[in-house]
Amino acid sequence: MPEHTAASRLQLSGLCFLLQILNILLFAVFVRYSPESSPGQCPPQLNCSWRYQDSDFQQPRFQDVHIQVLLSFGLLVAFLSRYGPGSAAISILIIAFAIQWAVLIQGFFYFFFNGKIYVGAQSMVSADFCTAAVLISTGAVLGRVNPVQMLLLALLEVTLCTVNEYILLSLMGVSDSGRSLTIHTFGAYFGLMVSRVLYHPHKGKMKREEQQDMGYQRDAFAVVGTIYLWIFWPSFTSAITVHDNAKNWAVINTYCSLVASTVATFILSPVLYEESTPRMVQIQDATLAGMAVMGMAGEMLVTPFGALIAGFLVGLISPLGFRFFTPVLHSRLKIQDTCGVHNIHGLPGILGALLGTLLTLMATADTYGDRLELVFPLVAQGSRTVTDQALIQLGALPLTLLLATLGGCFTGEL
Amino acid sequence: MPEHTAASRLQLSGLCFLLQILNILLFAVFVRYSPESSPGQCPPQLNCSWRYQDSDFQQPRFQDVHIQVLLSFGLLVAFLSRYGPGSAAISILIIAFAIQWAVLIQGFFYFFFNGKIYVGAQSMVSADFCTAAVLISTGAVLGRVNPVQMLLLALLEVTLCTVNEYILLSLMGVSDSGRSLTIHTFGAYFGLMVSRVLYHPHKGKMKREEQQDMGYQRDAFAVVGTIYLWIFWPSFTSAITVHDNAKNWAVINTYCSLVASTVATFILSPVLYEESTPRMVQIQDATLAGMAVMGMAGEMLVTPFGALIAGFLVGLISPLGFRFFTPVLHSRLKIQDTCGVHNIHGLPGILGALLGTLLTLMATADTYGDRLELVFPLVAQGSRTVTDQALIQLGALPLTLLLATLGGCFTGEL
Amino acid sequence: MPEHTAASRLQLSGLCFLLQILNILLFAVFVRYSPESSPGQCPPQLNCSWRYQDSDFQQPRFQDVHIQVLLSFGLLVAFLSRYGPGSAAISILIIAFAIQWAVLIQGFFYFFFNGKIYVGAQSMVSADFCTAAVLISTGAVLGRVNPVQMLLLALLEVTLCTVNEYILLSLMGVSDSGRSLTIHTFGAYFGLMVSRVLYHPHKGKMKREEQQDMGYQRDAFAVVGTIYLWIFWPSFTSAITVHDNAKNWAVINTYCSLVASTVATFILSPVLYEESTPRMVQIQDATLAGMAVMGMAGEMLVTPFGALIAGFLVGLISPLGFRFFTPVLHSRLKIQDTCGVHNIHGLPGILGALLGTLLTLMATADTYGDRLELVFPLVAQGSRTVTDQALIQLGALPLTLLLATLGGCFTGEL
Repeated sequence: MPEHTAASRLQLSGLCFLLQILNILLFAVFVRYSPESSPGQCPPQLNCSWRYQDSDFQQPRFQDVHIQVLLSFGLLVAFLSRYGPGSAAISILIIAFAIQWAVLIQGFFYFFFNGKIYVGAQSMVSADFCTAAVLISTGAVLGRVNPVQMLLLALLEVTLCTVNEYILLSLMGVSDSGRSLTIHTFGAYFGLMVSRVLYHPHKGKMKREEQQDMGYQRDAFAVVGTIYLWIFWPSFTSAITVHDNAKNWAVINTYCSLVASTVATFILSPVLYEESTPRMVQIQDATLAGMAVMGMAGEMLVTPFGALIAGFLVGLISPLGFRFFTPVLHSRLKIQDTCGVHNIHGLPGILGALLGTLLTLMATADTYGDRLELVFPLVAQGSRTVTDQALIQLGALPLTLLLATLGGCFTGEL
Repeated sequence: MPEHTAASRLQLSGLCFLLQILNILLFAVFVRYSPESSPGQCPPQLNCSWRYQDSDFQQPRFQDVHIQVLLSFGLLVAFLSRYGPGSAAISILIIAFAIQWAVLIQGFFYFFFNGKIYVGAQSMVSADFCTAAVLISTGAVLGRVNPVQMLLLALLEVTLCTVNEYILLSLMGVSDSGRSLTIHTFGAYFGLMVSRVLYHPHKGKMKREEQQDMGYQRDAFAVVGTIYLWIFWPSFTSAITVHDNAKNWAVINTYCSLVASTVATFILSPVLYEESTPRMVQIQDATLAGMAVMGMAGEMLVTPFGALIAGFLVGLISPLGFRFFTPVLHSRLKIQDTCGVHNIHGLPGILGALLGTLLTLMATADTYGDRLELVFPLVAQGSRTVTDQALIQLGALPLTLLLATLGGCFTGEL
Repeated sequence: MPEHTAASRLQLSGLCFLLQILNILLFAVFVRYSPESSPGQCPPQLNCSWRYQDSDFQQPRFQDVHIQVLLSFGLLVAFLSRYGPGSAAISILIIAFAIQWAVLIQGFFYFFFNGKIYVGAQSMVSADFCTAAVLISTGAVLGRVNPVQMLLLALLEVTLCTVNEYILLSLMGVSDSGRSLTIHTFGAYFGLMVSRVLYHPHKGKMKREEQQDMGYQRDAFAVVGTIYLWIFWPSFTSAITVHDNAKNWAVINTYCSLVASTVATFILSPVLYEESTPRMVQIQDATLAGMAVMGMAGEMLVTPFGALIAGFLVGLISPLGFRFFTPVLHSRLKIQDTCGVHNIHGLPGILGALLGTLLTLMATADTYGDRLELVFPLVAQGSRTVTDQALIQLGALPLTLLLATLGGCFTGEL
């Protein structure tokens, strides 16, 4: 951390105070508990169609929700291994603020009715998805922006991320249950654009040297982070899939993908670097990439070997990105990427979206059976052909990139 | 750890042996598996009324129980960051002994029938609640008592804590699902009184210097501890709330409270200390305090912003307590508080109890609806007015303080 | 790690590549998603009788499965405290490969039908059980074999472990829900025999000195490992028990056992070593041993004090084994045991199997009630007497030892 004067310290303190008071006031005015009884209660005026479209939809059990709200912490642990515990305090502040703000913003879009936001288990999950996108973005700029700037970034990104999610999921009817696009891709490119705008050639260099010293601790954190991700993330990817049947597939596909991307790291690492075994940080990156690629396709893949292939490829691409693409980003495009979010979240997210499009094209009622209605409800209802759905899935990708890039530029300027 | 002679080593070894043999004998004579069929099987002679009073009560699912039995470990992890791994071995011994002892003592009060204690999932949760109170107390005296004294403390405190819980919950009908009073307040003041009686002006000083050296490791432990608490504690607070509906509210309220208290730490810390961001240990303390305050009120709050305000206030009070109150405790009242349990568990527990009383006063059938019967069964049945219930909730506070103080004095003398 | 030349680095890289391509091809040809509908769908040709023999068998909920797939990671964390994070990367490679391989091999034995393997939640759990056995074996040879040898060991052991499991559980009808025999005993003796064959008198010495230096980190890892095991393992032991009722007993028995073995460590440690409190690594070993002994007997014990006694005894035997037996193993039998798997998994596994046999002999319809059908279905159906079942349980022990020893020799020679 750079030295802070008394003024900048009080600035952060004051901003936290103002934002917290604002949150309390907005919660007092708008937020009430959802009755959480039958889904039929969701009135037609309320934009909850995409969540409740299934007649036998069930509120997620709190036990599951509970586990998924850990998502951001998985990312946090992952960052620790790249940047050390110095970043943890600020990251937790960002999480604490972004969760409240996301409950409000997402509430206005999805749970707003009669002038009140009705929160429930679902709101906490949605809010945490948003927080994860914010955390990915901060990964790109960690060490080069101060906490006050981070809070502003969170404020704006939660809003834009919700707008993007609303357009994609509710208006366009895109299937993206594991959020390849709305979290991984959006978060990564948003952060990269902020990093581009804030580019200072000499900043961030020193940081990297400091990092080198704590090799041992980084490894220890990376071990803990990798284990954490293996344990909890597959269940996260399947958080929003509505039925247990689709969920099981999403979990197994995610497992297969991360297993294959882990092995892929062991293949490329000895070739790219002169080390016999990859470092734990690289294994952790492969784990994250293998999960990001399964975000959209996780519930669509009908055979486990597809997940193995996707994970294998992304496990090869991610280290190649670190070796060849990150230096190019830095020297040519003047984008610094502290934690390599482009290789871990950006690229795998795009690949995941392309894979999802391909799978959508190949979807037939025969291979999916009952699951067709769960994964592509509009196709199953006959109001959309498979090709239309695939085009829409594909179109969501440039739209997300555009929104993320514009949003990142705008935020960086501020 | 002070140096131990061969005699003191064998003393601990022998005491462990005796206590374990005693536990095995008592288990052999008294403890049997509960048939765990219908709650109707609970015979009227058995004092299980407060647990089974609801006709549609369900045995907690083991998955949930399982998670809640981690509670003590959350506290343990929290202590690690304040005191280092040297204390871990003794703490685990205390946990291992206290769980067995609590199963026995709690069994005699709640699950005793026909000369046998019938244990089941419920017993393990109750035993762990007790163990948590013991662990909070040891936090106050860590580093100044030897393991043999710790075991005796556990032996006595489990007994007294169960008596206190029995009086409050079964005899007085107090609503305290998250155990603001029976765990946090009782544990903190019990430990503080033991600390007072065992006061030696020169002991514990050296310890603190040792602590200073391991700043980095403390931070790493605090990061892990904070993440652990965020993940698992909200589900713990709602462990005993009987219905999923009430449970959801308790979880969301606890989340809101801890989020607000975390932000509050960022507001006060730059003002109180000359640091731009709070240390991870302070964030962890705020997390614990924000959870302790929601213990009683978690299932009573009907609006999320109430939880935000409560968490915000307690997040401000806890650092103020560390800054101004702990030195006063030490110099004036001659109470040393190794891990600051007064600020983390004692004060927030009292505030939580007062908040619970206030909320009880404001409870009406309109705002609670069906939940009234779950949160205040006696009020819903008409056998008690809201004011009576509030007075009883309020009266439970001084009673707990009295029992904890007397028990602590008595234990300290021994 | 010893220095690797460019050739050996590329050897590992190439082997990983070949194995992963092989896995993808085999998955593409054989593995399909299971329809996972009713158990009645399991056709008679398919060898799934032992899993579906209960008419009201339910597919495990994914939430539970999810938790159990962590098992290997519990072992991994446990090894970290003995060997440091240097071993983590290789262990994760072993896990990633062994899971895929185990899905295939186990699929051929249990889920093969019409030329396809139908995978589901159950397959992932079975695969992970196998992976755990492999990880136990690697614990015996850690630091003395290179990654390529480890991968070959995993390849062979997964196959042999599945054969052993198939013979014991499907053909002989042995009750071993927590896998005392098929994981703990098999894994330990397999690893020990490999270690025997690969014996080099001067290797591994240097390693041990390196270990001594990182005392502090080992303790920190051991604290995390112990907490992890306490939290997740009891639920693992009861993963395969089919009914919630039997499951609850298995969980409580495992808790009792680990609590007692922890206290036992505190009794013996001051006597065996000149330390007042045991080191965290010893407590972690006691935790593992206390769990291994409950593998078979966990669902059979009808009184909690039996679990206390078993845990207490094994908690005494495990440190005695480290003190007196491991040196004998090394000097007389020329078996090096890097992580002491013989004391932690081997001996407790054998004791658990003997205890299970004894309990089987004592099983009567009176004490078990409805649970008899769950624990010993063949006895309940009348097709086998209790004595027959006990003899078969007993006979499974030498058979497992024989297979593990032969398999270990064979693998070591290769």
